[in-house]
Amino acid sequence: MSRYAIGIDFGTESARAVLVDAADGRVLSTAPCPYRHGVLDRALPGQASRLPADWALQHPGDWIEAVETLLRAMAAAGSPEDIAGIGIDFTSCTVLPSTDDGTPLCLIPEFRDEPHAWPKLWKHHAAQPYADRINARATEPGGEFLALYGGKTSSEWMWAKGWQMLAEAPPAVSRSAARWIEGGDWLIWQLVGAEVRSACQAGYKAHWQRDAGYPPRQFWEALDPALPSLLGRLAEAPRPIGTRAGGLAAVWASRTGLRAGTPVAVAAIDAHAAVPALGVHEAGELVMIMGTSTCHLLVDSRRRPVRGISGVVADGILPGLFGYEAGQASVGDIFLWFVRTAVPGRYGEAEAAAFEQLSREAAALAPGASGLLALDWWNGCRTPLVDAELSGAILGLTLTTEPADIYRALLEATACGTRRVIETFEADGVPVTALHACGGLAERNTLLLQITADVTGRPVAAARVPDASAVGAAIYAVAAAEQASDMTGAVQRMGAAERTLYRPNDAARSVYDDLYRDYLEVARHFGEGGTDLMKRLRRRRSVA
Amino acid sequence: MSRYAIGIDFGTESARAVLVDAADGRVLSTAPCPYRHGVLDRALPGQASRLPADWALQHPGDWIEAVETLLRAMAAAGSPEDIAGIGIDFTSCTVLPSTDDGTPLCLIPEFRDEPHAWPKLWKHHAAQPYADRINARATEPGGEFLALYGGKTSSEWMWAKGWQMLAEAPPAVSRSAARWIEGGDWLIWQLVGAEVRSACQAGYKAHWQRDAGYPPRQFWEALDPALPSLLGRLAEAPRPIGTRAGGLAAVWASRTGLRAGTPVAVAAIDAHAAVPALGVHEAGELVMIMGTSTCHLLVDSRRRPVRGISGVVADGILPGLFGYEAGQASVGDIFLWFVRTAVPGRYGEAEAAAFEQLSREAAALAPGASGLLALDWWNGCRTPLVDAELSGAILGLTLTTEPADIYRALLEATACGTRRVIETFEADGVPVTALHACGGLAERNTLLLQITADVTGRPVAAARVPDASAVGAAIYAVAAAEQASDMTGAVQRMGAAERTLYRPNDAARSVYDDLYRDYLEVARHFGEGGTDLMKRLRRRRSVA
Repeated sequence: MSRYAIGIDFGTESARAVLVDAADGRVLSTAPCPYRHGVLDRALPGQASRLPADWALQHPGDWIEAVETLLRAMAAAGSPEDIAGIGIDFTSCTVLPSTDDGTPLCLIPEFRDEPHAWPKLWKHHAAQPYADRINARATEPGGEFLALYGGKTSSEWMWAKGWQMLAEAPPAVSRSAARWIEGGDWLIWQLVGAEVRSACQAGYKAHWQRDAGYPPRQFWEALDPALPSLLGRLAEAPRPIGTRAGGLAAVWASRTGLRAGTPVAVAAIDAHAAVPALGVHEAGELVMIMGTSTCHLLVDSRRRPVRGISGVVADGILPGLFGYEAGQASVGDIFLWFVRTAVPGRYGEAEAAAFEQLSREAAALAPGASGLLALDWWNGCRTPLVDAELSGAILGLTLTTEPADIYRALLEATACGTRRVIETFEADGVPVTALHACGGLAERNTLLLQITADVTGRPVAAARVPDASAVGAAIYAVAAAEQASDMTGAVQRMGAAERTLYRPNDAARSVYDDLYRDYLEVARHFGEGGTDLMKRLRRRRSVA
Repeated sequence: MSRYAIGIDFGTESARAVLVDAADGRVLSTAPCPYRHGVLDRALPGQASRLPADWALQHPGDWIEAVETLLRAMAAAGSPEDIAGIGIDFTSCTVLPSTDDGTPLCLIPEFRDEPHAWPKLWKHHAAQPYADRINARATEPGGEFLALYGGKTSSEWMWAKGWQMLAEAPPAVSRSAARWIEGGDWLIWQLVGAEVRSACQAGYKAHWQRDAGYPPRQFWEALDPALPSLLGRLAEAPRPIGTRAGGLAAVWASRTGLRAGTPVAVAAIDAHAAVPALGVHEAGELVMIMGTSTCHLLVDSRRRPVRGISGVVADGILPGLFGYEAGQASVGDIFLWFVRTAVPGRYGEAEAAAFEQLSREAAALAPGASGLLALDWWNGCRTPLVDAELSGAILGLTLTTEPADIYRALLEATACGTRRVIETFEADGVPVTALHACGGLAERNTLLLQITADVTGRPVAAARVPDASAVGAAIYAVAAAEQASDMTGAVQRMGAAERTLYRPNDAARSVYDDLYRDYLEVARHFGEGGTDLMKRLRRRRSVA
């Protein structure tokens, strides 16, 4: 067995590589590489004219520059003959049009001033009208596929972005877009010299299912006769995550100092790569990546339509299992909003100090003693309601309410949101057997973790795994190189083992059972037909 | 006609006198006199032992010292033979036990260490259990009187405080309490040498009605056999406000330099005295005294039971008319809570500067454009729900919500609360023909006044009348001295005439009609049987 593996995480503003020990997952070296062009959300390179609102593009040259720089750095840190494999994870759905041979249209001189020729970054939101039109046909023939995606496609995903390109780009651009491909898959194509797409990206972002393939031609045709042409620009047989896409091309070997033929794994979505990095490989173990939002990942042997999930995909997280993704649309975002917008000056100017004082004060409060109840919908509700038009609420305010009361109520609200995700999985037939937490909040917000344990009534195992996505990508690389029937061996050996365990407190739990019932009552009233007040408020906001 | 009148306002921490021109109401001289003992809420004078929670007492010696000091100062400022009359207004219900000859029990050496022998200040809240027991019998025979008081008595009022004294004081104290009398009435008794009580205090605070008298003996008997004894300790025939209680006693003439026999008017409640000071004398003109809370006062020729008012009383605001009092339990209090609790440091440390910046930013927002909706129940809801267990709410929060959005939503919420008070009056048969605003908020919060005009769809006439209560007391004194059939002449001549008019903006009004419908929907859901969630939150707060 070779001794090392390389994982590279392609993020929004930069890429970051790790060299890990294939025996135990220890990180031996890391290196960052910021993108020269960052996020293109104001103008194209060298152009003065502004991009429209909600646009967000990237430059494929930045990815090439990063992968070359980082592979060379990792080759220098290890020794090329000891590199078992290379894995990458990528933001998704970040998607670009290319020619048949993989040339990005934006790099062809005649198209470089055309925004639609450039890669659309995951957070490009200008395709919302196309997502809306797809979702409006969810109950028409052929729309059944959406049941596996919480009932809705997203403006961030493959089909909405593709339709926008077809509908809005100059005909020469859309005609030349022989391929419509994820950035991660495109980069793998460059490295191995063959177009090998990932079931992870195809499954979660293009609605591909192992049994049914992509959603049927008739469904797309009814929406727009141009749409079925996208089917031919995707890939027919995406490969399971954790498998081999090919060997490193000779040209890349000479550019980086690595061995030609070094196994390269199919690309992964960045969040999903955290699962192997945490050492999780069993059905029912819910991984919560807690940051500005929380992403919930889970594998199971069965495929069930669960309300409001982002998707359930064969081979999408671990090969051989169905991977589920759910989400809370805002978590850390709410706390940061609170500290920046609604905490008085006596808590200090520095956010970190304010959080520390708030946490200390909030920790001294008894569960529910704030007399407040909040709905954690500052950025809408993902699972289970999939409704971006919902908004946050704080109830129970009095003249004696203190900032720490509100902060604690916000923590409790996001924990109630987490409990609701868990109960949604279980009610729809997918058992949740354990809770794992990672990400920025899991590393520093101990009060949130304790409250999450108390509200859910389950122990929360928090892990600190720096560069988790890159480490996960390296584990996928080892699995791909080993060509085992599943990834269990690599994950057990290389995934993180250390945990801090937050156990539920019985007394707190009983108060929180009541509070959670109240949360559900309010969530149902405002989110599920009791009233459409929040939509009226939102409309008033946008027209005013 | 004499040239001057004296008005003295007895507040919570101090008294304040004005000498006004009886011809036009101009204030010629003012003088303050703080109370030596302030509010007794920790211990009795000279005692170490702490008073129980929620107790608040005053020292009658402070009132005597203040009235002597201030009458002497006003006598020196005017000329005694030109003083037409003396009027006082007083906090209410501030009530004390005295002997038959008017000696306060607390000034009798054997009782001075007994808290129940001292005057209970209006904000003494320890009688809540007694108010609750009275209200629980509202639907029993004899309880009909409560319909004229929004359906509930208050722990701050005469009967709850009296019952507390009867139930908790040593028998010697309650036996010696031959009289149970408002501080304002007691002070008039001292000045004129005869016990003459005011229909204003008796009507609003002891549930006395001109036709029915006090609530019937049987009602009280059913609650506690000791309670009917209070009836004999009140006064049988309170006199209309704005009438003569008597002439200044010779002993007070010599102590103050005023003329013996100078007419003294019956006492008024401090808030109610603002109505004549504003020059308001016609039915339907709503006076809003806007401060920490808002008190709404209105006169009409008919007596109707209006939902959730504090009371409707014959001769209680102006003689010959029924006076209505309604209220919003928190207004300025909410804004102050917000600035102190939920506004970030970049708005500055000084509250005034923060309010100025918030007002400027909030004024730049379009009506309803915050996308927020708040319920103004930080201190419960007075009119129309009379429910102290309700609490505040903010709905529609997003990651882009700014402090000025919230501030504007709070202003809009209190304006919706005002509209609801107006609509409650009108729905229950009492027309509102004009809106007058005075008090601290009316003098400085121009944005609130404009939003109130826009939300109610009515012009708001704001007046700046410093020492309004004292000026009103002086107008009552002139009316009492003139012995006219009504006060119209004195009010027209002496009341403030200057107004700043805030006219409703048509475009804003139409947005606010929608917002108000939403406000009503949420208010009904949380306040009127949709859910008792807020009561559950409150209970959780108190047990935790």
